[in-house]
Amino acid sequence: MMEYIEQLHTQRRIGELKKYLNEINPADIAQLLETVENERTRVFLFRLLAKENAAQTFVEFDGDTQENLIRAFSDTELKEVLDELYIDDAADIIEEMPATIVKRILKNTDPETREAINTILKYPEDSAGSIMTPEFVDLKKDMTVEDAFKRIRRTGLDKETIYTCYVTDASRHLIGVTTVKELLLSDYDDVIEDFMETNVISINTLDDRETATLALSKYDFLAMPVVDMENRLVGIITVDDAIDVIQEENTEDIQKMAAITPTDTPYLKTDVIDSWKKRIPWLMLLMISATLTSQILTTFEDKLLQASVLTAFIPMLMGTGGNSGGQSSATIIRAISLDEVRFKDIFKVIWKEFRIGAISGLTLAVVCFIKLLLFDRIVLGNDAVTFTVSIVISLTILVETICAKIIGSTLPIIAKKLGLDPAVLANPFITTISDVVSLLVYFGFAVLILHL
Amino acid sequence: MMEYIEQLHTQRRIGELKKYLNEINPADIAQLLETVENERTRVFLFRLLAKENAAQTFVEFDGDTQENLIRAFSDTELKEVLDELYIDDAADIIEEMPATIVKRILKNTDPETREAINTILKYPEDSAGSIMTPEFVDLKKDMTVEDAFKRIRRTGLDKETIYTCYVTDASRHLIGVTTVKELLLSDYDDVIEDFMETNVISINTLDDRETATLALSKYDFLAMPVVDMENRLVGIITVDDAIDVIQEENTEDIQKMAAITPTDTPYLKTDVIDSWKKRIPWLMLLMISATLTSQILTTFEDKLLQASVLTAFIPMLMGTGGNSGGQSSATIIRAISLDEVRFKDIFKVIWKEFRIGAISGLTLAVVCFIKLLLFDRIVLGNDAVTFTVSIVISLTILVETICAKIIGSTLPIIAKKLGLDPAVLANPFITTISDVVSLLVYFGFAVLILHL
Repeated sequence: MMEYIEQLHTQRRIGELKKYLNEINPADIAQLLETVENERTRVFLFRLLAKENAAQTFVEFDGDTQENLIRAFSDTELKEVLDELYIDDAADIIEEMPATIVKRILKNTDPETREAINTILKYPEDSAGSIMTPEFVDLKKDMTVEDAFKRIRRTGLDKETIYTCYVTDASRHLIGVTTVKELLLSDYDDVIEDFMETNVISINTLDDRETATLALSKYDFLAMPVVDMENRLVGIITVDDAIDVIQEENTEDIQKMAAITPTDTPYLKTDVIDSWKKRIPWLMLLMISATLTSQILTTFEDKLLQASVLTAFIPMLMGTGGNSGGQSSATIIRAISLDEVRFKDIFKVIWKEFRIGAISGLTLAVVCFIKLLLFDRIVLGNDAVTFTVSIVISLTILVETICAKIIGSTLPIIAKKLGLDPAVLANPFITTISDVVSLLVYFGFAVLILHL
Repeated sequence: MMEYIEQLHTQRRIGELKKYLNEINPADIAQLLETVENERTRVFLFRLLAKENAAQTFVEFDGDTQENLIRAFSDTELKEVLDELYIDDAADIIEEMPATIVKRILKNTDPETREAINTILKYPEDSAGSIMTPEFVDLKKDMTVEDAFKRIRRTGLDKETIYTCYVTDASRHLIGVTTVKELLLSDYDDVIEDFMETNVISINTLDDRETATLALSKYDFLAMPVVDMENRLVGIITVDDAIDVIQEENTEDIQKMAAITPTDTPYLKTDVIDSWKKRIPWLMLLMISATLTSQILTTFEDKLLQASVLTAFIPMLMGTGGNSGGQSSATIIRAISLDEVRFKDIFKVIWKEFRIGAISGLTLAVVCFIKLLLFDRIVLGNDAVTFTVSIVISLTILVETICAKIIGSTLPIIAKKLGLDPAVLANPFITTISDVVSLLVYFGFAVLILHL
């Protein structure tokens, strides 16, 4: 596709180029234009887009491209793009821009829009208010279906979605909801009040944006109404924005679970120093915490010298403990994210993980015991792997698996209860903790059974 | 809420109970009824729901509850619920039911619906075809806006969404698309052909369902049209189902990344044996693979006895390698899922991770070196931690970090290229591999620098 565009461009076949570009979906044009290396060519191509396409394409660019384009725009051009943007998109863009650009953007929007943008920007990050748009269709309860359609036709063009219509009273309280589908299937002279849904599900501006999107998904809504403390309707969250939030939250969870500070920049666009900044603090913290394991090993150094065969199984034991705990923590962190597990379930979780840990540990211990005696001792001829040594290793597996499962599943629940982020307590942290537990259990059994 | 329902039920205030239940959103009724322990009470309460509510509630139940309800239903009741279901929901339910129930369901659906359900069931699991519904609004290009609205009013009630309308030719080829918003904002005598979007984005029945949902999200669609090999429109995927797929795929990815066989049963509803079955194979595989580390340690046992201080740092070194690799693999696996990184990017990825690994490794190595000499040697008075030993440990950190980052980032890309699941190559597997690498690097430097 890009080759064809470049060809038309070099041959100055501008008419054809314009027609070609405007037939592509804005999400695709944005992707194409981002691959254009030459800044001036990109601005040139962007200027060929029809007004509505231009705004829709602009929204899809990443922050850097948007910034560069705005710098290249005249005030008139900037105003044209801004006029076509939805309020929530404009607010998103402004959040990413340096102060000088923000000033220019706000200067080129009309006062009403500016106020609406500022309202959204004032809500805390990650709140429902910060991702809503004030552009929704509101109806009055005494309107007929015909009135409603008239209103939608008159005001609908600038609304992000028209399909869910909200019924408000004189003080803008949300009192009902209906859909264009219902309107279409009703008679023209039916009155809204008679068929609107009055048990309206809504969320508060200060609710977490994740709560809002989970609710939207649970109720299969196309938009979730957002109300303020006085139950006045102030905005809606549309389903396409909700999907973006879901994907971002999932990416963040996965990053945190891998001990990375979250970022929403796509991988190939993050620079090396940025990636380093997101990753090094956690690596450092985990490395320093591992000092504990070194301490334990130093303490037991004499005993290890007496039974040096024990050293060979340290990595395997720590790996097994870490993996067992990691499974539990990942499962529970995800269940918390999906609101399937709450603090009140903590004892159910402990009891369940105890049982899973017990049968998993037993299975692993038995297999390991057989493997040690058959493979390590007989096949590899490692005589140091005696019956009692195998007992010590297998018992350690059983106990550490149970401990790791309980630690891995309860810490995220407790973290959530304390207002911390459960996703941080995933594999890397659980591994560090379970390493310590595993070593203590190992040496405990060694001292007890091998009489070191 | 449940207390009030139980109170009305015990007092046999059935009229009030019915009114109360029918005012609650079906997604919430389903959650409430699932908490009812007594099977007969649940069936009784379910029977109080109005026909449309009943079907919508039924869809929200988990498989077990659905099965139990169907067993309690008379044929008439079953038919009533089935008639209200959308085809894709009916297909979903059937997939989970035992053969006898499936037979009863199919017996109680009309032949046309039965055929439609069977068509969906025939598509491979995880394909776009398997999650689509054939109930969409189709228009003809020579219809006027007025004709279109007439058609929507006549057929819209049973469609899962009416807001995106598809224009097909006589052989059902998809030739255009328009929306109710556009129809509402047009004049009654405008002809569809004149304003419909002709660059229709669609996906194929056999495409992966994840591809379908990513595209729907990219283009902000409310529904994604699904076409067969001859570009005939056979169904649509609605946005609410797309969100469910996105959440399921994310849960699956997180489970795989924690070395668990994926399941879509919520945590508290999975039984212990099921959880064990999903977790034990991977724990076992990883435990057995760790035999390699035991082998390496056994090989170097004599050398470790000569410099027993080295043992104390094995867990820390392996932890750091595992964490470094885990960060990279999680980042890349997520980027692959979001289609941000493809096989062609592999060299870019390697080069980037090499640099991130180099500066991260260097930072860690320097901090570790200082910590070893200041804390371990001076504060803790561990004289065995000499200058050269500290050099060996720090160099190992530098090299293992670089190796782990490269391994962690490239293996998922290669896995994807080979048609395997990249998510499986996450932290646990990368850790096992990086453990081996770390130990080899460690003993390599030890032999070289300490002349063991």
